[in-house]
Amino acid sequence: MTEFVTPKQIRQQARIGAFTGQTSGMCPGYTQANLVILPKKEAYDFLLFAQRNPKPCPILEVADAGSKRLQTFAQDVDLATDFPKYRVYQNGELVSEPTDVTDIWRDDLVSFLIGCSFSFEAALIAAGIEMRHITMKRNVPMYKTNIKAKSAGQFHGNYVVSMRPIPEEQVVKAITITERLPQVHGTPIQIGDPERIGIQNLDQPDFGDAVEIYPGEVPVFWACGVTPQAVVMESKPEFVITHAPGHMLVTDIRDNQLADIL
Amino acid sequence: MTEFVTPKQIRQQARIGAFTGQTSGMCPGYTQANLVILPKKEAYDFLLFAQRNPKPCPILEVADAGSKRLQTFAQDVDLATDFPKYRVYQNGELVSEPTDVTDIWRDDLVSFLIGCSFSFEAALIAAGIEMRHITMKRNVPMYKTNIKAKSAGQFHGNYVVSMRPIPEEQVVKAITITERLPQVHGTPIQIGDPERIGIQNLDQPDFGDAVEIYPGEVPVFWACGVTPQAVVMESKPEFVITHAPGHMLVTDIRDNQLADIL
Repeated sequence: MTEFVTPKQIRQQARIGAFTGQTSGMCPGYTQANLVILPKKEAYDFLLFAQRNPKPCPILEVADAGSKRLQTFAQDVDLATDFPKYRVYQNGELVSEPTDVTDIWRDDLVSFLIGCSFSFEAALIAAGIEMRHITMKRNVPMYKTNIKAKSAGQFHGNYVVSMRPIPEEQVVKAITITERLPQVHGTPIQIGDPERIGIQNLDQPDFGDAVEIYPGEVPVFWACGVTPQAVVMESKPEFVITHAPGHMLVTDIRDNQLADIL
Repeated sequence: MTEFVTPKQIRQQARIGAFTGQTSGMCPGYTQANLVILPKKEAYDFLLFAQRNPKPCPILEVADAGSKRLQTFAQDVDLATDFPKYRVYQNGELVSEPTDVTDIWRDDLVSFLIGCSFSFEAALIAAGIEMRHITMKRNVPMYKTNIKAKSAGQFHGNYVVSMRPIPEEQVVKAITITERLPQVHGTPIQIGDPERIGIQNLDQPDFGDAVEIYPGEVPVFWACGVTPQAVVMESKPEFVITHAPGHMLVTDIRDNQLADIL
């Protein structure tokens, strides 16, 4: 995808349906964003859920009700077209996976852009820490946990975490680097003891793919942006749109600008 | 007030009306909080305003609608009694300044706890940086600016900032220390050039008291928690309760725990 040089170009290709693929690795250094779109009547509880659970649910930006535009994270954006692929759920059931949701847009829809682990992975890689799932060309392994999120209205549930094996001698570095990105999940929530957070078997992730853990490595767990989606789905909302997994919005904001914005 | 040893004791004295004074300097190290209480119908726009303007409007915690309790910042709290003094506004006009709002409580009221500069002042003082307004036993000087906050629904307006004179050689230290407290206003937004943000005369603050600036000192401006109150008042809401200036809630959370919570 080297022909897509800027985030704006990627969004424009997605808008006309010419690009419908995953965005992993595109425009390194630029923040990519998850999407949850809910009717206004559910927006307060969801925003409150995010405020109460900033580690698994880091809000980057909330659009005005009915608006497909953003003020901060992308200029010249159309939220109904500029993600490469969407998922539409009705009463908790997946009903379609379109590349454009213009035809089902409603004036009462509120779009939430949510931070993504791509941002902190780029920082970890830049510091010389291998991301095993990237080396193995897999999705990061994600697990349901016994850590209760703070509930807000109808939204309640447990944290989902992502796991990355880190060599023991790099664990401190992994912590200090992700501490500098509190806007995108921040520091790990567990190191080395999966059972303590209710994970029985690392070889059987609930989402994504298992990865190998080599001798001398420790499994390190971060709060995961799948949490808010899982929590929304559990409440079986009448209508919700999300991005399709891996098909994110590439924003105009660089990861190293997040601290100035949020 | 040395007889009040713990935050809980202060809250209990406030609850029974035995303590109705300002909380400045009480329980050093514990986070104090501003208060805005709005009807539920205005809560979404206010929470969105805070999300869009985290520097002037750092939300510590939002209570459930109708609830006088908190989950995180204080155990055994009654939000209708535990601030030493409140202000009640109707249609934008101050109508009373009670020490208890139990009798006017409503099931649709949402309480927002907002961070306060006391938290970062404690850190600056601990680092050997004089807070001139404290030395002079005055309120910190606050100024309206030309910096537009991002609007949300009915809530719009400009930043209010607080000013502290800092010796030139301590300015870098003041920045790095407040950078570590993004949960309570974070880094300064202007250094040394008040006219650039629309402040004509440092001797005439819009709120609080003027302070002296000595030779070799630079005026440093931080986003101020008065901003959300000013913005709410500008919209002349039908009903709003705030704390009385300086009469804060003393919470059970220490300033150095904020990064773990928010």
